[in-house]
Parts: sequence; C-alpha cells; structure tokens
Amino acid sequence: MTTPIYLGSWVESANGHPDFPLENLPLGIFSQDDKPRQGGVAVGDFIFALRAALDAGLFQGEAAHAAQVASADSLNDFFALGPGPRRALREALQNLLGENSPQRAAMQALGEALLVPMGACQLHLPARVGDYTDFYVGIHHANNVGKLFRPDNPLLPNYKYVPIGYHGRASTICVSGTPVRRPSGQTLVAGTETPQFGPSKRLDYELELGIWIGPGNAMGSAIAIEQASEHVAGFCLLNDWSARDVQAWEYQPLGPFLSKNFASSVSPWVVTAEALSPFATAQPKRPAGDPQPLPYLLSERDQASGAFAIELEVLLLTAAMRDQGLPAQRIALSSTLHMYWTVAQMVAHHSVGGCKLQPGDLFGTGTLSGPEPHEFGSLLESTFGGKQPIQLQNGEQRTFLEDGDEVIMKARCRRDGYPAIGFGECRGVLLPAD
Amino acid sequence: MTTPIYLGSWVESANGHPDFPLENLPLGIFSQDDKPRQGGVAVGDFIFALRAALDAGLFQGEAAHAAQVASADSLNDFFALGPGPRRALREALQNLLGENSPQRAAMQALGEALLVPMGACQLHLPARVGDYTDFYVGIHHANNVGKLFRPDNPLLPNYKYVPIGYHGRASTICVSGTPVRRPSGQTLVAGTETPQFGPSKRLDYELELGIWIGPGNAMGSAIAIEQASEHVAGFCLLNDWSARDVQAWEYQPLGPFLSKNFASSVSPWVVTAEALSPFATAQPKRPAGDPQPLPYLLSERDQASGAFAIELEVLLLTAAMRDQGLPAQRIALSSTLHMYWTVAQMVAHHSVGGCKLQPGDLFGTGTLSGPEPHEFGSLLESTFGGKQPIQLQNGEQRTFLEDGDEVIMKARCRRDGYPAIGFGECRGVLLPAD
Repeated sequence: MTTPIYLGSWVESANGHPDFPLENLPLGIFSQDDKPRQGGVAVGDFIFALRAALDAGLFQGEAAHAAQVASADSLNDFFALGPGPRRALREALQNLLGENSPQRAAMQALGEALLVPMGACQLHLPARVGDYTDFYVGIHHANNVGKLFRPDNPLLPNYKYVPIGYHGRASTICVSGTPVRRPSGQTLVAGTETPQFGPSKRLDYELELGIWIGPGNAMGSAIAIEQASEHVAGFCLLNDWSARDVQAWEYQPLGPFLSKNFASSVSPWVVTAEALSPFATAQPKRPAGDPQPLPYLLSERDQASGAFAIELEVLLLTAAMRDQGLPAQRIALSSTLHMYWTVAQMVAHHSVGGCKLQPGDLFGTGTLSGPEPHEFGSLLESTFGGKQPIQLQNGEQRTFLEDGDEVIMKARCRRDGYPAIGFGECRGVLLPAD
Repeated sequence: MTTPIYLGSWVESANGHPDFPLENLPLGIFSQDDKPRQGGVAVGDFIFALRAALDAGLFQGEAAHAAQVASADSLNDFFALGPGPRRALREALQNLLGENSPQRAAMQALGEALLVPMGACQLHLPARVGDYTDFYVGIHHANNVGKLFRPDNPLLPNYKYVPIGYHGRASTICVSGTPVRRPSGQTLVAGTETPQFGPSKRLDYELELGIWIGPGNAMGSAIAIEQASEHVAGFCLLNDWSARDVQAWEYQPLGPFLSKNFASSVSPWVVTAEALSPFATAQPKRPAGDPQPLPYLLSERDQASGAFAIELEVLLLTAAMRDQGLPAQRIALSSTLHMYWTVAQMVAHHSVGGCKLQPGDLFGTGTLSGPEPHEFGSLLESTFGGKQPIQLQNGEQRTFLEDGDEVIMKARCRRDGYPAIGFGECRGVLLPAD
C-alpha cells in the first residue's frame, strides 16, 4: 500500500492542520461532560467518535472489529491487536473521512455525535500503563549529563553496546494538562556532608519520545529485532520531570528513584507507525570507531529504515508571561535523529532476557538532545548544570523551573512533498511544593 | 484486643501447623481444576473458601463485607480496604474456626466445599502488581556487595540517610512454583573490552521480604511515617533472581535492568500485620556514630515496634539431589532484624515526593543477609563473588545456580510462649536458557 499524498478531507479543519491532517489519525481516549471515557481518532479540530461510527454501521470486517476494540475506555486491548487490525482501521478511516467518501452525507447528518469538537472534550491517558521503562538513547544527553555527574568519565564503557534503560514508575504517568507538584526530598548541599530535606530546588523537564507497546511477549521468551516493529503500537511525547538535586544524592548505586517518580507527562494522542512511516529513515551512521551492534540488535531493515525524523520542541510559559499575555517561548528544538539506538533495538534488548512486555507498557527514549546548546532537551544541559541561566524574551531568566512555569512539548514530522503531521501537545504546569 | 495464645481449632491440622495455625490466617488466591480463581485463607492443610462461607451466611457486618471483597479473583480491592475490615475478617475467622465455634457442625457439613485441601489447589499471585519497588535495606548485603563492586567504597555516603530503592519490573513477578528460565544477555569477561552475548553464567537468588501495599496515596501527596502501617496490606517471601554477570556490565549509571527483570518469585500467602504483631519489636539500635534518621523517617512508635523478628531461610534442591531422593539443603538462615530501615520508613520515603502508591504495589526489602557467611542471602555473597564455592552434603558444590536447581525460601516467626507462624514457601526451579 503506497501512502496517498495530500489526502483531502470533508472535515475541512483537517486539511492543512498542523497536527491532525488525514495522514495522521492518531488514537486517544476522551470524554465529554460527565459521560464515560471512550476511544476516538483526532482529525483536524475534531475527535471522530468510534462508538458513534460503529452504531451508525460505518465500519465492516476487520476495521469494524478494530474500531470496536478501540472504542473502549482504554486502548490496551487495541494495542494488543497488533498492526493488521490497526492498518485496516486506518484505511477505513481515510476512506470515510476522505473528501469523496460516499458516506459523507450520512456522517454529516450525525453532526457532533460523530465528530466531537476537541475543545469540548477532556483527554485522558490512552492506556493503563503496565510497566514504564525509561531508556537513555540520546547520546548527546548522555554525554552532557555524564560530564556533570562524572567529569572524567562522561560516557561509560557499556553505552555503545547496551541500550541502557531502567524501570520507572507507572503509577505517576499522567496525561498532558495534569499539574505537577514540586516534590520534596533529600538533597546534599555542595560542600556539606549531611543532607537536608525540603522542596527540590533544581526541578527540570526531560524531552523524550514515548513508545506505546503492542502485543508483547510471554515471560521467558524474547522478541527478535526483525519482529520488534509488530510490538510497537504507537508514539507520544513524554516529559520525564526530574528533580536534579534529589537525583544527585540518591542515584548511586541503584539509579534514579524519587527524583523521577513523582510525575511523567505524556501527550494524549497515540501516533501510529503507519502515520510515521513516510518519515522513516536510515539509522544515522555511527561515528568511526564505534562498535557494531551485537547481532541480536542488528537487522538490515532496521538499520535501513528504523529511525524517524521527528522534530521535538520545548516551550516555556512562565507565570509572568501568562500575566503579560505573552505566548510560550521556545527554549529547545531537537530531533529523534539523535537517538543512538532505534526503537526496534530498544524492544529487542528489553525482551532478550525474557522480560515480558505487555500491551500498554510505555517506553521513554530518554532525553533527546542535539549537539548544540539550543538543542538541549533539559535545563540541566541548557544551563550547564545550573551555572548559566537561559534568558527569556521578557527579561526573565531560568536555571531550573520555578513554580507556575508551564512546560509545553510539541513534535512535528516534515518532509518535502508530503503534509506535515504533529503529535499535539504535552504540557504541565508546576505547582508549589506542599 | 489482646491476641489469645494457642488458639485451638476444630480444623485439626491447624493445631501446631508449622506455617498456618489459627494465629496466622494469611490470605491468597487459589483455584481448583478448571474453576475460576477465588480468595481464600490458609488454615492448617486447608484453604477456607471465602465465597462458600459467604454463601453459607457465616459472616456478618464488616467481616462479611471484607470477606466479600477478599473472595474475588485478586486481593487488590481487599488491600484497598485497609486495616479495619481486615481485622474484622480476622476476628470473625478466628471465632468461626476456633474449637468452640457454635457454627462448627454447619461448617463441617459443608466439607471440602468450605475447607479445600490445599494440595488439591493451584495457588496464584495474590494481586495484580501495579508497580514493584525493590529496596536495599539489608545493610550487611549492601556492604558485602559494595565490597565486590566497589572495593574502596562499599557503602556509599547516602546509605545511612536514604532508604535506597529502585523501580523493578512488575510484569515478571510470578508466584512460587513458576519455573524460571535462565536469561541471556550481554556480559563482559574480565580482562576483555568487548562484551559477549549468551546465557548468564552467574545466576543467583536474593532472599527478600516482600510487602504488599494497601490503600496508598494520591499523586502529589505523601504518607506520613505515623500513618505508614495503615498502608501495608501484608507480607510475603520474595526471590529477586539476579544475573550477576549481566548486572555488572549494565548497571551503570541507571541501575539494574535486564539482570533483574526476567523474574521475581513471591510466596502465595499474604501474612497480615495482625498475624505478625506478636513478633513486632524495636528497630535494632543503629551503630554508634550512625546519623539519626531525618524527621520524615522518624517516629517514636516505629522505632519502638516497627521491626519484625522473622527468620528467613534459603534451601537448595539440585537435580542430583532430586534424583538421589535427598531433601533440599539449607544454605542460608537470616532474619528481618538485619533491615537498616523499617517497612514504615520505606513507605514514608517512597511517597514523600508525591509518588502514588496503590493497592497491589509490591515492595521488596532487598537481600537480607546477616553478618556471618551462613547468613548471606545470595550466592554472590556466600561464594565471595564466585571465588569460594559452597559445599553441598551430597558432594556437589555451587558458585552460582545450575540448570535444574530449585531455590526454596521459607520464613518463620517464633517467640517463647506463643505458637510459631510461617509464610509457606517461595520456590522456583531454574530452566536452561532457550
């Protein structure tokens, strides 16, 4: 199936929509007023309600089954279906919503029961998160942070062999828009030997791509890299909020804990592999002298097309900017091309020892920074460990986040001769500590 | 309510039972043949079926409600009820099963519908695990392992301030009896610079106490140490299987990942705080010179009675021992008194930054070793990093586990003038790598 170019839709706001043209069609969970949660698909400024479409008999065959499963109050069961039904649903939706759809009049007659204005809806976590794993595949981030924590030894010897990851906290994954409370914890003031307890003074964001896992594997079995893509249900933005002062004191020897587990925000829309496929590209060549991946992490197809060109952006809206009526200001622009390991390599590595992956598990890539300061995906990096504040256009400056700051992440895919698609937003405002 | 001593039961196998006398009454999930899973209570050699007891009208009031909730196919909702209903159910059960119970004849008439022979049942995970956190509160273990990984720096400066913990993998928590497959992974042979891939050659167990979490807290709020015990639903044994060679290569800088996430086994019975309360004791005094816990980790009541005296035991049954008809051999005997931090301190620390704890979350204490070699809770320690094999009575020796080895953990509480209670077993046999 070749992807048609510039699909026109009778849903006019979809045509040229910065995030949700007909080429995207991400899935999510929404609710209206006090009604129950249900599955829907973003198209232009609307959510296409799968339940209403099913009731109107708009789907047949495999697409009807997929729509049925995706119309539930979470997408876990839809993720479990794998790529076949997901593609069937996508094809049916592109036909239904295309400008020449024979059912256009019938759908228009359903009005807002079928196409719910997104602005009137509440968006929810797309799935119940089983386990959350955060990787560390942004090599510039690993280098930048390594320099701060271990000046002599920024990139450890395992980095270029092992897609480093660790288990994070599933219970505090929250959907974009959820306010985040500044955590309190133990920190060690430089030059002292006794820790203090109090609100974190070095609160940070981390710009990450999130990956929703599909069917998965049984405990004790592994997913071969050639099959890995079948187990990826979709993608989102992820802000892995981090308390740097807590992290520095607690992280040895077992890794980050309270410094990360108070909140991680995700964007509500699940962008599918099908929507991203026009932006698939070869894995960037490893620098000369870097080792080849071990065989279980190496697949010709993955090397040839397992990377994605997704622009990632961080914007900051401070309380003062809100008061002054100013828009959020971009403070970082990066890309998923800075991943040292592909998503398929992450899946293959995670499962190679028999760890069970399940529908609704979430992976984060780790912070995706570029090599230049304006591409750094965390304030820890942008301010060189809090030493050089960043300057905002309204005269404010920041080393780390202040109460009332809102962090907004966006992602966009662009390619000549093809409409751009976007991820929507992942945003969260920082509340003062209790 | 004072705990009666030597409760006699008309369920004769309960009287003097090494694990399950009437003073214990742990809860679990069982099934028979192809019938659905349901909640029950261990008493002697039987499982008291809560559903059958409810159908027979044996419970009233708060106990009936608690039994209703606990009779489901997982104990998550029961854990959510908190200590009040749990205590009401315990009291009702001790009355019903006591030797002078007025309903004795009615219950005996129900036969095996009410008291199911445990040997005829399959036991399951007691709850769906939300998040799994592994702590590191066994200070002798931290010291022993620290010496192997960091000879100059065994106990890091944070250890005596921070109840160190990290997030583990929930999806591979499995119930006792589940065979565990030897994982494959990357390892670095000493003296080389390029890792190899293959089955782990240093597979180990870790002897831990598991803690099932009860009601929990909302994201952004914390559980004060004074309230921590209300959020503990019960206790179990936990074997945190570990691939030491994988761990050594992968664990920096973000902690253990594939070396631990292939399997963690738990015993099926949830021993309640009420059953353990006769064995509660003062937190052992910190060595002179150790710092006081920070205020959020300090409560007079917890210091006075927040520790438990539970004997912990590891037994090994090799394939050769099975063939020779030999019983499993004890290879370690330790105690929960070797915890540097109490369970309440673990709960208070975990939630202090706003991390949400939920019913069915599982904590592990980390390996609980004593100071002497026969008290070491892992082979890594017992064999001094694989350098001194342990000798088995049949002439075999072990540095790390071999395929076919079965690791069996047991726990027992004893006190003069009070019947002992036990945890049952946590066992798992090691299958060869795929």
